[in-house]
Amino acid sequence: MQIDGRTELIAHLGWPTHSFKAPMIYNPYFESVGVNAAVVPMGCRPEHFAAVLRSVFLLENMRGALITMPHKVSVVELLQEASPAVRIAGACNAVRRDAQGALVGDMFDGEGFVRGLAHKGFAPRGARALVVGCGGVGSAIAASLARSGIASMGLFDVKSECADALAGRLLAHHPRLAVATGANDPAGFDLVVNATPLGMNPDDPLPVDVSRIEPGAFVGEVVMQTERTPLLAAAEARGLRVQVGTDMLFEMIPAYLEFFGLPSTTPEHLRALARLQY
Amino acid sequence: MQIDGRTELIAHLGWPTHSFKAPMIYNPYFESVGVNAAVVPMGCRPEHFAAVLRSVFLLENMRGALITMPHKVSVVELLQEASPAVRIAGACNAVRRDAQGALVGDMFDGEGFVRGLAHKGFAPRGARALVVGCGGVGSAIAASLARSGIASMGLFDVKSECADALAGRLLAHHPRLAVATGANDPAGFDLVVNATPLGMNPDDPLPVDVSRIEPGAFVGEVVMQTERTPLLAAAEARGLRVQVGTDMLFEMIPAYLEFFGLPSTTPEHLRALARLQY
Repeated sequence: MQIDGRTELIAHLGWPTHSFKAPMIYNPYFESVGVNAAVVPMGCRPEHFAAVLRSVFLLENMRGALITMPHKVSVVELLQEASPAVRIAGACNAVRRDAQGALVGDMFDGEGFVRGLAHKGFAPRGARALVVGCGGVGSAIAASLARSGIASMGLFDVKSECADALAGRLLAHHPRLAVATGANDPAGFDLVVNATPLGMNPDDPLPVDVSRIEPGAFVGEVVMQTERTPLLAAAEARGLRVQVGTDMLFEMIPAYLEFFGLPSTTPEHLRALARLQY
Repeated sequence: MQIDGRTELIAHLGWPTHSFKAPMIYNPYFESVGVNAAVVPMGCRPEHFAAVLRSVFLLENMRGALITMPHKVSVVELLQEASPAVRIAGACNAVRRDAQGALVGDMFDGEGFVRGLAHKGFAPRGARALVVGCGGVGSAIAASLARSGIASMGLFDVKSECADALAGRLLAHHPRLAVATGANDPAGFDLVVNATPLGMNPDDPLPVDVSRIEPGAFVGEVVMQTERTPLLAAAEARGLRVQVGTDMLFEMIPAYLEFFGLPSTTPEHLRALARLQY
């Protein structure tokens, strides 16, 4: 990669920055296809975020910003325009400036998850989905599933108020969706999503009782520290179809490229070029 | 170059950015020696500069900033600490944050020029120098020459008030320096410096009458659009020793690396690695 005076920047804002993956995914792709742009890490503590975000978008060669922890929620109130996914999830991880200078935010975690399902032949329309974990990423997935025509959804979080609040935000945008909260029993669902951190540590309990997942159901995972989490291993042992966490990651990046107005590509191409260490 | 979550940034602030050279000099060097840092262009219009500079230094991984046109003068009043070179030149092109968070500015154009002379065997101590052109770079060179022990200096600018003002700033820091203004006759000087833009265009007049330069004098150039400017060509035709504009550029970069607390190297090493198009 050659940075020069014509390079456009995508600010990757978060703190700490050490575990950032985006520079090693986007930049090899930009280099490979001749896009003169670079994702650069910008370590920003919470108390400085509002000032930094405003200033970043004063720069002439700032194509956009990727927003990660701990700013994904606090960024929302700094936007002039938020997508339905942002409003339902209450979180945002991509910001660009429109032609009038307004800050526009979107959120493609859920979109990446649903695109990955579609690539694997899972059709969300009319299906029944259980989303376990109703934080930022679970909310984003629920929002994208609702937009994709899921008929009914179960929401579970150990903090029951989080599941109830998500149910309310979903129904405000999708009044015909059937929503139930309070149970993580996967029986009766066509799709089971782990959107909790369970699986990041080897001795975590499973987020659902895998023995009660329907035969023929699909199991999706957001944890990406390992490719085969205990949940996915147990689901595959039962012959269920699965989606690994990094599929969501690579599936969402074409959506971010489109959002930033940059040439897009396939998740497979991005995965082949990425310089990640697993 | 691989940018990742541990990459430190050096913001290269200016507008327009298209002709920036620093990323193509610093970044190949950083890559070559395994320093995880990157110079990134940040296009900033004058009206946003103060806000952007403050915010840039709120970032945790910001190692420093290179300041170029049109901000080299306006940055000075935003500093908490300015070197004598900055105070004499009235301009600054490098800023870092000290341990207490104060913004510290310095200016190494003149230092680069004088280091280049020293590498070529020219000893400034006790010598007589003519500096033609008393803007930012001429002032910086005059300041560094004065600090290096030049005994007397002639200053000339088509705007005579610029030469007089520089004389005043020099004398405030170097009261024993002999300074004369108002003439660009090179007779009687051991060193003749072109710090004007004359030579950037092929039909520019020469900045001094080359036929009147002393035999054995040294001629230095700041114009770096071409290696052999008409001034240098005429001086070499007379058998005089010369310094090309890009020597100043590569000689100053070790000083910037030291200022930013990064491993430094030789100008020759930097020149061999640089990916500049001349």
